[in-house]
Amino acid sequence: MTGLVSSAAPSSSGRYPSGRELLEAMGLASRQTEQRMEALLPVPAQYIGRVQEAARYAVFAGGKRLRPFLVKSSSALFGVSEDNWLQAAAAVEMVHTYSLVHDDLPCMDDDTLRRGKPTTHVQFDEATALLAGDALLTLAFEVLAQPAAHADPAVRCALIAKLAQAGGTLGMIGGQMMDMEAPNSDFGYDEILTLQKLKTGALFEFCCEAGPILGGASEAERALLRDYAADFGLVFQISDDLIDAIGDSGKAGKTVGKDEAQGKATLISLLGLDAARAKVVELAEQAAARLDGFGPAADSLRGLPFMLIDRES
Amino acid sequence: MTGLVSSAAPSSSGRYPSGRELLEAMGLASRQTEQRMEALLPVPAQYIGRVQEAARYAVFAGGKRLRPFLVKSSSALFGVSEDNWLQAAAAVEMVHTYSLVHDDLPCMDDDTLRRGKPTTHVQFDEATALLAGDALLTLAFEVLAQPAAHADPAVRCALIAKLAQAGGTLGMIGGQMMDMEAPNSDFGYDEILTLQKLKTGALFEFCCEAGPILGGASEAERALLRDYAADFGLVFQISDDLIDAIGDSGKAGKTVGKDEAQGKATLISLLGLDAARAKVVELAEQAAARLDGFGPAADSLRGLPFMLIDRES
Repeated sequence: MTGLVSSAAPSSSGRYPSGRELLEAMGLASRQTEQRMEALLPVPAQYIGRVQEAARYAVFAGGKRLRPFLVKSSSALFGVSEDNWLQAAAAVEMVHTYSLVHDDLPCMDDDTLRRGKPTTHVQFDEATALLAGDALLTLAFEVLAQPAAHADPAVRCALIAKLAQAGGTLGMIGGQMMDMEAPNSDFGYDEILTLQKLKTGALFEFCCEAGPILGGASEAERALLRDYAADFGLVFQISDDLIDAIGDSGKAGKTVGKDEAQGKATLISLLGLDAARAKVVELAEQAAARLDGFGPAADSLRGLPFMLIDRES
Repeated sequence: MTGLVSSAAPSSSGRYPSGRELLEAMGLASRQTEQRMEALLPVPAQYIGRVQEAARYAVFAGGKRLRPFLVKSSSALFGVSEDNWLQAAAAVEMVHTYSLVHDDLPCMDDDTLRRGKPTTHVQFDEATALLAGDALLTLAFEVLAQPAAHADPAVRCALIAKLAQAGGTLGMIGGQMMDMEAPNSDFGYDEILTLQKLKTGALFEFCCEAGPILGGASEAERALLRDYAADFGLVFQISDDLIDAIGDSGKAGKTVGKDEAQGKATLISLLGLDAARAKVVELAEQAAARLDGFGPAADSLRGLPFMLIDRES
């Protein structure tokens, strides 16, 4: 967390947490969510063990656990119990993980490494990775159907419907399909926006709305968090594109410059580097400003977009 | 429907429907379920259309719609509304279809034809088939979370949990994993029973319990339908193995003799042909007898196991 955050005006009713504070808060949410996922994932049993091991391998391969942190942070605004948000955080992280496992398969991106470790189909085999992804997606819905997700089954159903929409063809899967169509299409700004909104934005929207849904908030409050999620998703995507465009491949932990090499249209290639940098800060400020009414409980959500901008990986 | 059925003693409180009656009833349930699925599946939209078309292609590739018929038949015992059972029937058929699409992929069974038509990844491509399967699994849970599935969200959650368990690592996915481990293991009778119970039995159990769950039946009634499902699942598997062992490949619409050629342990190779034939009739009679208390409403469920035995494909 550097210049961008300290130069931003603090909200009248809250403040921007320091980079260290945010990292510590993220680390705590990550440990809590991993503990919950450990309890929810089946223990590898005879004959079936391989697919269960593969699911665990994929889930515990590391990662920032950004989605669980969003669930926890949106829940903090509405007094949601720890038991409840943890269940939603575990479910969305399982869905995110399944999407990575399937995305890495040879018929999709054919990636052999993720976060420096062999991808699931390399460590196990393709069939096992395919089934492990299927298993994680299935388990996510089971987890949300359990009473631990919320005492009121109507709330559990609302979460399930929201997650299914976020992960379906009008959400993440649609975004992946659109990404596959991109090389054969002449996407402009609007199409790239739509693609990102579907591919990564929909799951972020689930995370940000999980809090108000679990906390029984008003539709106006849900809409507010939905708008925050839209800003957040764009900040995530543009900052990701910036890392690819100007990042250091050692620090990023992945190949950079891929988009340009592939001739891929991104918001940066469409806006230009300077405009993209200005846009991403404007979006982060807009996201933070939406939370003015929430006081200190919203500090994490206020600071997070700026942290994304400052990240190097 | 031939000798086997007419020689079985009719139940005191119901009767065995004729083969023609059963086929007509199955055809009706199939048309009803297809109509519901047509309404539930998203209409192919620009850029995303390909994955939605692939999902539709897989769903409307035909099939007996045995699982929807089980849902309808178990629902008939407990006065479940058409709107409710149709939603459950559509959901389970989507899960069944996704499992076929993923099973057919090159990294799994590598099948190029299903019911005489190109499999989804052959008709489209592997990545699209993978995503279409993911989309169908996701949509199944969305469908069960909708009010159309049941007015009471607690009932919807119970159905969702049941479907997730039936489709997860301790159900269908576990069975597929165990099937993959089979060539490297020396499976005996118990292991083959477990494999079948997981691979196909769990989803049948969902179908048979959907009725009592939707109809608010007692736990004793749920247990009774669960026992029926266990018998039914075994009849399904043994009769399937019998077609493979002695069937006519033209009538079966698929290669027969595959199990023996692959040296695959089946209940038939373990029991012997004569004992397997006797066992399957005994199981069908046992399944029917469990429904003695239900009167004519259970006629479909009574006749169905015998129909499976008499089928040639």
